[in-house]
Amino acid sequence: MTTIATSTEYDQLIKISKDVAALGTTMSILGWDREVMMPKKGNEYRAEQFAVSSRILHELSTDTKIGDLLDACESDGDIVGDQTSESAANIRELRHEYDRATKLPSTLVEEEAKLASLSQSAWAEARGENDFTAFQPWLEKIVALLQQKAECFGWAEGGEPWDALAEDYEPGCTAAQVSEVFTPLRKKLQSLLDEIMGSDTKPSNKFNEIALPVEQQKAFVRSIASQIGFDFEAGRLDESTHPFCSGTHCNDVRLTTRFHENNVNDAIGSTMHEAGHGIYEQGLLYDHVGTPMGRAVSLGIHESQSRMWENQVGRSEAFWKWCYPTMKEFFGDATASLSFEDVYGGANIVRPDLIRVEADEATYNMHIMIRFELERLLMNGDLAVADLPEAWNQRYKEYLGIEVPTDANGCMQDIHWSMAAIGYFPTYTLGNLYSAQFFEKAMEEIPDMYEQFGSGEFGALKSWLNENIHSHGKRYRAAELCEVVTGKELSSDPLMRHLEHKLRPLYGLA
Amino acid sequence: MTTIATSTEYDQLIKISKDVAALGTTMSILGWDREVMMPKKGNEYRAEQFAVSSRILHELSTDTKIGDLLDACESDGDIVGDQTSESAANIRELRHEYDRATKLPSTLVEEEAKLASLSQSAWAEARGENDFTAFQPWLEKIVALLQQKAECFGWAEGGEPWDALAEDYEPGCTAAQVSEVFTPLRKKLQSLLDEIMGSDTKPSNKFNEIALPVEQQKAFVRSIASQIGFDFEAGRLDESTHPFCSGTHCNDVRLTTRFHENNVNDAIGSTMHEAGHGIYEQGLLYDHVGTPMGRAVSLGIHESQSRMWENQVGRSEAFWKWCYPTMKEFFGDATASLSFEDVYGGANIVRPDLIRVEADEATYNMHIMIRFELERLLMNGDLAVADLPEAWNQRYKEYLGIEVPTDANGCMQDIHWSMAAIGYFPTYTLGNLYSAQFFEKAMEEIPDMYEQFGSGEFGALKSWLNENIHSHGKRYRAAELCEVVTGKELSSDPLMRHLEHKLRPLYGLA
Repeated sequence: MTTIATSTEYDQLIKISKDVAALGTTMSILGWDREVMMPKKGNEYRAEQFAVSSRILHELSTDTKIGDLLDACESDGDIVGDQTSESAANIRELRHEYDRATKLPSTLVEEEAKLASLSQSAWAEARGENDFTAFQPWLEKIVALLQQKAECFGWAEGGEPWDALAEDYEPGCTAAQVSEVFTPLRKKLQSLLDEIMGSDTKPSNKFNEIALPVEQQKAFVRSIASQIGFDFEAGRLDESTHPFCSGTHCNDVRLTTRFHENNVNDAIGSTMHEAGHGIYEQGLLYDHVGTPMGRAVSLGIHESQSRMWENQVGRSEAFWKWCYPTMKEFFGDATASLSFEDVYGGANIVRPDLIRVEADEATYNMHIMIRFELERLLMNGDLAVADLPEAWNQRYKEYLGIEVPTDANGCMQDIHWSMAAIGYFPTYTLGNLYSAQFFEKAMEEIPDMYEQFGSGEFGALKSWLNENIHSHGKRYRAAELCEVVTGKELSSDPLMRHLEHKLRPLYGLA
Repeated sequence: MTTIATSTEYDQLIKISKDVAALGTTMSILGWDREVMMPKKGNEYRAEQFAVSSRILHELSTDTKIGDLLDACESDGDIVGDQTSESAANIRELRHEYDRATKLPSTLVEEEAKLASLSQSAWAEARGENDFTAFQPWLEKIVALLQQKAECFGWAEGGEPWDALAEDYEPGCTAAQVSEVFTPLRKKLQSLLDEIMGSDTKPSNKFNEIALPVEQQKAFVRSIASQIGFDFEAGRLDESTHPFCSGTHCNDVRLTTRFHENNVNDAIGSTMHEAGHGIYEQGLLYDHVGTPMGRAVSLGIHESQSRMWENQVGRSEAFWKWCYPTMKEFFGDATASLSFEDVYGGANIVRPDLIRVEADEATYNMHIMIRFELERLLMNGDLAVADLPEAWNQRYKEYLGIEVPTDANGCMQDIHWSMAAIGYFPTYTLGNLYSAQFFEKAMEEIPDMYEQFGSGEFGALKSWLNENIHSHGKRYRAAELCEVVTGKELSSDPLMRHLEHKLRPLYGLA
């Protein structure tokens, strides 16, 4: 009798979770539509639509009935006894979500949704006009609202407001821990970068100087996304200012990328990156849609998937063995003058530069460290928004040795802060670390993987990821998943090995 | 004190109305996305999204608080005293909507949303494969569900189930009344058609035989939509199987059309039709968005706007004086052999044919009459869904003298029934009648309108429609609006005058 009664409570909880997700994924479509399809004048009312939907979503998510059902399930050994069972994972994560949601008043949720929506447009416009002062009042409102939000959540003894926000993106992650990982990583990267910058040998840059028609680039990157395993019957690829992947559920995953005539490399990298996110989303199980078991582990793990396809695969010599002749088929004479070395080398040029999403693998994490330091200061009240451009520019000089000519290409280059997403950036670097560690393990288990890439076969890696990572949903937390999959704790060694192994030969270093 | 208290109640009601609309318009985006953007595999879950959103929408719309607020407002003379005031119109229509909504159980609403969503895909597939038996079980479920829905609403003494459904599309409209209008109209049309079909003089059909590249057609119809006044900063134009206009609010209106290489006429007609709907939606006032004063009167009035731009404008000699040379600019040599007479005549060929959305103005209403008769029979249980194809084909033979070769081009050609929209079709013919009557009035007040069309100027007509029809929202019901605008009750005379005046000369009739 107890089992049946409790099972009914579990089923009720799952039903509520799925209903909440149906509305949540509706909002994903609204968000995608805003970036990709919505006419300009639609923006003001779209903010209303988000505000009302967010409020309803929050009301549904904080129904006290959920708390009662969770209490009942948590005291039932059949449900939570085996901690890695589907039901235990669902209960653990639903409890986490419920506790988070109930700490926020509805008014704050609605206010944040509206502010984030309006602020994104203000950002896009201010960025277009390189006018930080136009964006400044919006970012000030966002920081103030997020400080209030952090207060609602609270943080652990010795922690800080940033921790409270990061919990939404990378559960369990604190600013202090991130700092501990970032400080030594920065030293190792700096040392490698110094060697690279000091070398007289450099790969040819011809690949990055060639102009290729955007329409052909579109067809080309679409074929790459398809080849590596993104299912176009369960997804789309469109264009937007800032590339993103919006996964509403495994059968409807929306990617965007962007094109510049003289930078096919960016289009390839962005597309493989977003397709990596998309392949993760498509690899979640439809039966679990709307429950934690059907959701990605964390943004760090999500990013490990996008980075793997972008970097471990997409910048490998093996990948270019397939992609180089394929590219010639798409672009014909326009690429006739490029040698294999031009292309493989060109995809791996290391050059400290302004734009994070165009950064190479070696400098990328520096961009993240700068953002992390600044948002931590903003949240602690140790940096005024008005002083952000100066603080930004100063760090770019120090970490990457470059001058920032405009705020549009400086502190306004990313969409994240305008979306009220503070605490998010470090997940990119965590993703790079997880990616390298997962890929080393996959290589151990599929020793001929590079040969496969060389003939355009990516199915073995995709299946390995499906099985070892995607199909688990949120069964494990990030750190635990890393140990289950690789047998080891997260370490920066695999990423450094990956970079050294590839870049030293290209730059003629011992 | 009373005034203040009641005003607060009115404000609360408007706030709730706006919130409900924010969620409702979110569902419009979901619907548009499904037709235009969604990847194939997304369909199953989209039905879940619709079902949950519909249920929430229904719960919000039937909150007893709305009933209490309505009661309070209805007893306040300041609000409802002047029957054509904004507040009185809002209260009248909110009462109508609330009473309708509270008659339906949530389960039925959710079931209908889910069924309609799945059924639309089944229809699209069955239509693609010309397999009525694949669609039949879906339509059977829809008819059964709509009969149940009609029972919930009820109908007036002497009425029938169809009336209960039509109320959603054309408030106050009954099958008996429709029949009374349709029977004599059919006779007059039949008589004109007989003369036309018997005439030896016929316009040239060259315009309808010419193949024009689809990409150029797209640019061309886009420029037409823009020229007649559709604002692309507040809307989009895309493609779908069945052209439609999805208006989420006046600043975000989504049109679709379709293209065939050998039928630019269809693309022009469809685009002007949908742009006519779109111009109406864009002409509603933003301040009233989410309230009845910011919504269209009825589908019949909506259709009057689409038909006016498609027919009264888009098939007029004056319009082609501007459009003919414009077309030559877009298509160049491909249209060099077409004379003005080929084009104007070709846009007005009368030819009984299979497809409603491609029908000419003279035969169009016959298509509607057939659908109306059949859906009335289906709802009364006097026709089994299995017998629909036969009944359809028989009427096409009788009314239009043509054989129906396939169900895909027969009873499966329209999306409406698959969307559970029964009671909808007659609004198309009502629209034709209103359109002709409004246009005659506009012509009285803007005597040089045709000269303006000839030089590509459509602003005076658009402004007249904005002022006399669009800006009123639901201030008046359809019949009342007709009298306010034209000073007369709805009559079929203006439509017959319009047809006779144009077609007799083209067909060499006295």
